[in-house]
Amino acid sequence: MGVGRPKQFDEQEALELAMQLFWSRGYGNTSLSDLLSEMGISRQSLYDTFGSKRGLFFRSVEHYKATQLSQALALLEREGSPLENVKGVVGFFQDLAADERCRGCFVANALVEVAPHDPELAEVLQDTLDILQNSIRASLEKSIEIGELGSERSPLSLARALTNAMIGLAVTGKLQRGRATLRDIYSGTLAMLG
Amino acid sequence: MGVGRPKQFDEQEALELAMQLFWSRGYGNTSLSDLLSEMGISRQSLYDTFGSKRGLFFRSVEHYKATQLSQALALLEREGSPLENVKGVVGFFQDLAADERCRGCFVANALVEVAPHDPELAEVLQDTLDILQNSIRASLEKSIEIGELGSERSPLSLARALTNAMIGLAVTGKLQRGRATLRDIYSGTLAMLG
Repeated sequence: MGVGRPKQFDEQEALELAMQLFWSRGYGNTSLSDLLSEMGISRQSLYDTFGSKRGLFFRSVEHYKATQLSQALALLEREGSPLENVKGVVGFFQDLAADERCRGCFVANALVEVAPHDPELAEVLQDTLDILQNSIRASLEKSIEIGELGSERSPLSLARALTNAMIGLAVTGKLQRGRATLRDIYSGTLAMLG
Repeated sequence: MGVGRPKQFDEQEALELAMQLFWSRGYGNTSLSDLLSEMGISRQSLYDTFGSKRGLFFRSVEHYKATQLSQALALLEREGSPLENVKGVVGFFQDLAADERCRGCFVANALVEVAPHDPELAEVLQDTLDILQNSIRASLEKSIEIGELGSERSPLSLARALTNAMIGLAVTGKLQRGRATLRDIYSGTLAMLG
């Protein structure tokens, strides 16, 4: 291998490892050497490909959207009852909160830890939440159209309140609150749907 | 002043300043010298009184309970309708989320940033949330007793779901989501009460 020539590596695989590490430990608690060791790449490769630790974090948010958020969105795109799909996505966050690793949601973690000091990141995270909220809203609209949900409800208002409760679940998941608590949160949250 | 003699200072005032700083910046982003300069005390006084940065953080959580959480609890203790009191405490978190400083809730912040790496702190934070949740539950029980709320609802389940939504509001408050969003979250959350 020639001097200065970047080491070859699988960018998606490296991003997955970086995202997992940031997700578990947070931004501040993850050092550059932790990342290099986890990703198995050289410092030069990291700088060449991602620019900086902050650049890698932004790419990790994109990777989270492409892998985790897209799973939640896929639940909303399923055939059948759009109302059941909405319940499914709340259940997705209930499962996240039940995860014994207590990692919560990568986006909610970043919102709390990094967004207040980084307006550019705050905007990216806001857009990420909006994608989820808009998809829920669209499902609720379909649900009203087919008469599953009363038309007196505002799909936008409901989508906002549901998204807020899902963020709550992500943070609640930082503690081992037990299955019974999570079930109560799930059913209480769905009670919003009337 | 004699050598080694700790500087005199108002402990409550110093704690208030430390708590405000941790609340705004988080634990990792607040250095010991930031704290000393904000509190206006010497390094020796900090160690003598609080033991360490971590010790000071624990005392800050206690201070938050005594000052901020107690305000929320006082809302639940008011004369009159216990159901209105519960709505009042959700409104308290709505106001927190509307705060332009985007600080969220000190406890929720600590849950996300510090609790996963500090089981002892996680326990203190869990106890803090339980105090709020139990007070809400007691108000809901009174509310059922006087017939404001249907007896088919479980006060414990509702209290859990409401507490989760309030944690959500604390995190949502990290972004400037606008008054309309917060109003929708407030009314959507209260729709749980049927």
